Amino acid sequence: MKQYMQQAIQLAQSASSTGINPRVGAVVVKDGRVVGFGAHLKAGEAHAEVHAIRMAGAAAYGATIYVTLEPCSHHGKTPPCADLLVESGIKRAVIAMEDPNPLVSGRGIARLKAAGIDVEVGLLESEARALNTAFLRSLETKRPYVILKTATSLDGKVALDNGDSKWVTGTAARRDVHELRATVDAVLTGVGTVLADDPGLTVRLDRETTQPLRIVLDRDLRTPLSSQLVRTANDTPVLLYTTSDDQAKREAMATYGVEIADYTSLGAVLQDVYARGIGRLLVEAGPTLVTSILDGQFVDEWVMYQSPRVFGGKGGFYRSPQDGPLETIERFDVRSVETFGTDIKLIMRKEESNVHGNR
Amino acid sequence: MKQYMQQAIQLAQSASSTGINPRVGAVVVKDGRVVGFGAHLKAGEAHAEVHAIRMAGAAAYGATIYVTLEPCSHHGKTPPCADLLVESGIKRAVIAMEDPNPLVSGRGIARLKAAGIDVEVGLLESEARALNTAFLRSLETKRPYVILKTATSLDGKVALDNGDSKWVTGTAARRDVHELRATVDAVLTGVGTVLADDPGLTVRLDRETTQPLRIVLDRDLRTPLSSQLVRTANDTPVLLYTTSDDQAKREAMATYGVEIADYTSLGAVLQDVYARGIGRLLVEAGPTLVTSILDGQFVDEWVMYQSPRVFGGKGGFYRSPQDGPLETIERFDVRSVETFGTDIKLIMRKEESNVHGNR
Repeated sequence: MKQYMQQAIQLAQSASSTGINPRVGAVVVKDGRVVGFGAHLKAGEAHAEVHAIRMAGAAAYGATIYVTLEPCSHHGKTPPCADLLVESGIKRAVIAMEDPNPLVSGRGIARLKAAGIDVEVGLLESEARALNTAFLRSLETKRPYVILKTATSLDGKVALDNGDSKWVTGTAARRDVHELRATVDAVLTGVGTVLADDPGLTVRLDRETTQPLRIVLDRDLRTPLSSQLVRTANDTPVLLYTTSDDQAKREAMATYGVEIADYTSLGAVLQDVYARGIGRLLVEAGPTLVTSILDGQFVDEWVMYQSPRVFGGKGGFYRSPQDGPLETIERFDVRSVETFGTDIKLIMRKEESNVHGNR
Repeated sequence: MKQYMQQAIQLAQSASSTGINPRVGAVVVKDGRVVGFGAHLKAGEAHAEVHAIRMAGAAAYGATIYVTLEPCSHHGKTPPCADLLVESGIKRAVIAMEDPNPLVSGRGIARLKAAGIDVEVGLLESEARALNTAFLRSLETKRPYVILKTATSLDGKVALDNGDSKWVTGTAARRDVHELRATVDAVLTGVGTVLADDPGLTVRLDRETTQPLRIVLDRDLRTPLSSQLVRTANDTPVLLYTTSDDQAKREAMATYGVEIADYTSLGAVLQDVYARGIGRLLVEAGPTLVTSILDGQFVDEWVMYQSPRVFGGKGGFYRSPQDGPLETIERFDVRSVETFGTDIKLIMRKEESNVHGNR
């Protein structure tokens, strides 16, 4: 019954970020009535099936479960969902897609079948796959889904030649950045931005939200101990990548609660943060890091705010002259354009043909 | 009756450009029925009232006319409309606004009243005024309504450092430029663009359209006689502003049908083209002229196409570093944003508080 799988997909969509976990929804149906539903909302917390089975209670016995992804068969942060389905007496499982995670891929389904549960796979599979584009891509690249945020003038500048850069965009766009931060697991910046703007990189909204991990690329360990990031590291974690062997400063940083890791390359940093459970990463940085992240073709999504003004001068956000020819230069897919307060907001995605492009 | 004036306003809106004339609509009503309507569609051709009265024929006798602008009282390219209303036996005239043109301003109304016509002024005045924002501003500044068109990458570049600039945007955006050209009286460019791209600047669409006058700013008379513009000047007029006293070249140009005028300043050129009947001017030019036209605050409307790519390098469309402070830099009003093929299209207008700003 498509309608139940559709409902499971909608439930899964209510999760903003589940770290490196996929977004999953589940609906339990008994005698033509929904008796339980659930979604996986946060890494480490209960999976969609657990919520749905718990809600169904005794009604799960003899019922059908619709779930957007193959139930897991391994002990991760939570016990295997396949076992729970078997124990609850579920009679039939309709699964939108197999889990491509090598730890699962087919084993969950095999477990259900072995227990005599009637299993059907593939209902609304492409919709379910779209739910986890980022998750699926990350499984392959071992990097988080990278969102680049820029705020520029119409001529692509982030500052005047006198250094003035506060503020390029208006209050609506600036507030929107906090909404964006609230959807990610971590925010990445460079030491140039730390030195220039001393940003907090926390989510400041009129409601309770989770705080993203704050990550700084700082090869020469120039981040001041007096910076906002370091001073607040005990409240909101900071992870700093460096090549510096200044042990005294490394230890001072650690005393403040900053976690230090070794920098080798931008690609390696992205794989390291993914290994640490960061599934969705927001880049808020200056021209140096923005240029590197674009040139590395690491950007999955680009949220660009433009102030309808011209600044002139040398403060461009992108610093790498392209050789061309023009028609070979990567184009982003424009997903949405809107006016935002006095500014413009564009949302772009990596062009599908370039999805696997990475160096 | 508001509905008739609303209809007259809608009729007026059907005109794209009427050169330096206002957009006007008129509706003639007799015994609660519309018996005639008209709009002013092109400079030099019949005014709205003439079309409406002609359509009403004998029914105009004793009827009411709704007209968005005071009927003219002077002999311009056409005879005075006020006289026509009197002759046709119109009994009552409902006029949205007085004509601010010093040649009219109240005299048309006085003429109607003197003939015993019942006159009412002010119905939907602000809507009627909005119809002719450009006309009213031009009356004051003696300059055409200036539309700037740019096509850039997201970092504000119009070319790669190797000179490659064909094409920045896709086919949809390039076709749209022809639609834009079809709405204006003239297109303005600089000699840099002529030398770099040898553009035709004509309207090339699958339907019959008028062709805008093509205007070139060329101080040193560097436009080649072999350029597309010069070679086609007999078919589609070209007006060239220069400071050069190279009589031989001036005469050669004239032989090809190019009209030569003296360049003193950009502001003077704009006033001169307005005096020649150009009410709506499109600027399609390179960074030098685009920077001058922006710095002179001459841009009334800005149509910006952006290709969702980054080019890097030195090819920025705007060359004048702003001193700041940041909050004093002129902001445009964003009127519309949309995806356009693979590109982005922004329409912006001069901020209302800056409408009278000009140097």
